[in-house]
Amino acid sequence: MFPERLSRLMQLFARLPGVGEKTAQRYCLYLATEGGELSRQLGEELLAAASSVGPCQRCGNLAEADGEGQLVCAVCRDHRRDPSLLCVVARVQDLLAIERSGAMRGRYLVLGRLLSPLDGIGPEKLPLPALLQRIAEDGVREVIVATPPSVDGEATALLLARELSAVSVRVSRIASGVPHGGDLEFADQITLGRALDGRRSMGS
Amino acid sequence: MFPERLSRLMQLFARLPGVGEKTAQRYCLYLATEGGELSRQLGEELLAAASSVGPCQRCGNLAEADGEGQLVCAVCRDHRRDPSLLCVVARVQDLLAIERSGAMRGRYLVLGRLLSPLDGIGPEKLPLPALLQRIAEDGVREVIVATPPSVDGEATALLLARELSAVSVRVSRIASGVPHGGDLEFADQITLGRALDGRRSMGS
Repeated sequence: MFPERLSRLMQLFARLPGVGEKTAQRYCLYLATEGGELSRQLGEELLAAASSVGPCQRCGNLAEADGEGQLVCAVCRDHRRDPSLLCVVARVQDLLAIERSGAMRGRYLVLGRLLSPLDGIGPEKLPLPALLQRIAEDGVREVIVATPPSVDGEATALLLARELSAVSVRVSRIASGVPHGGDLEFADQITLGRALDGRRSMGS
Repeated sequence: MFPERLSRLMQLFARLPGVGEKTAQRYCLYLATEGGELSRQLGEELLAAASSVGPCQRCGNLAEADGEGQLVCAVCRDHRRDPSLLCVVARVQDLLAIERSGAMRGRYLVLGRLLSPLDGIGPEKLPLPALLQRIAEDGVREVIVATPPSVDGEATALLLARELSAVSVRVSRIASGVPHGGDLEFADQITLGRALDGRRSMGS
């Protein structure tokens, strides 16, 4: 019923996260009836991105290849960043969220995954050698572990703290507690427990 | 914060229907971290579709160009279709829905728009000459007006009936009423009114 070319396009769209058959069909119909200009631009940008965008070779953040084909991201290029402060995150999305907060003045390392024994992801699948190398090369003094406050995220944080105990580096963990604007009434027990555990002295 | 190339890609994705900034960013992050294979395939298919897919030159349905660059859709190519039965629809999506039902054995004409005086769409913006030409060329005996049962859809149907009154062709309108599996209790007044108006004799 659909031209074959559009069916193929639809199947490719359906591989994007959160896109089902209906949504993919909607995109294809829109593109096919819109005149071809958006299809052309999107096609060209996708091909360009496929050949020039990839993970930063230093930290794993998104990067665009420079003239010499080197993939170094904007954070690693930024010389105003404090190289002695290294923030370890699970995913690029987490790095972007921290960058949006503007609260991190150091650099990053993207693990790409969390420790998850049930899924067969043991310590050997985490980039620990790369982390140790970064610490040695950049003279890192503090590693901030910003993995999520989930079971896997906490397990990964504990593993990193243990692995780094032999290195002379401070290891810290981001705070977990009631979020800004959050309601204590609706906070879950674990969050409240952590908020109490992580309490800070307010006065003199 | 994002590589420039990905920002451009994100803006293009955000032009797809129902895609906002967050969704566009999600697609880009997925594509950028997935290795480039999907980006490449999607890019190539989009470029191919942009140059070969477009509206059928006979009916306005989606079509893929043949070897000679002619855009004729699968329905218009299908010689088993009854050329004397012509179904007029507003959009390609409506044509596809009718095709899915399998209940139409004739051919189509996609208007592309409905009469909408408030939006400045008057009778002169509807492809009435093309409709008259199709009727004459194909020896159409019945025109089924399958515009939606909305204000604009009904106005368009009335206009078509009036314009075709001078031509020796039967003009019919798809039935409007309570949908299959629908609940009378929750049907709106207009739908129930139409269901009663359009009642059919059951017995001898």
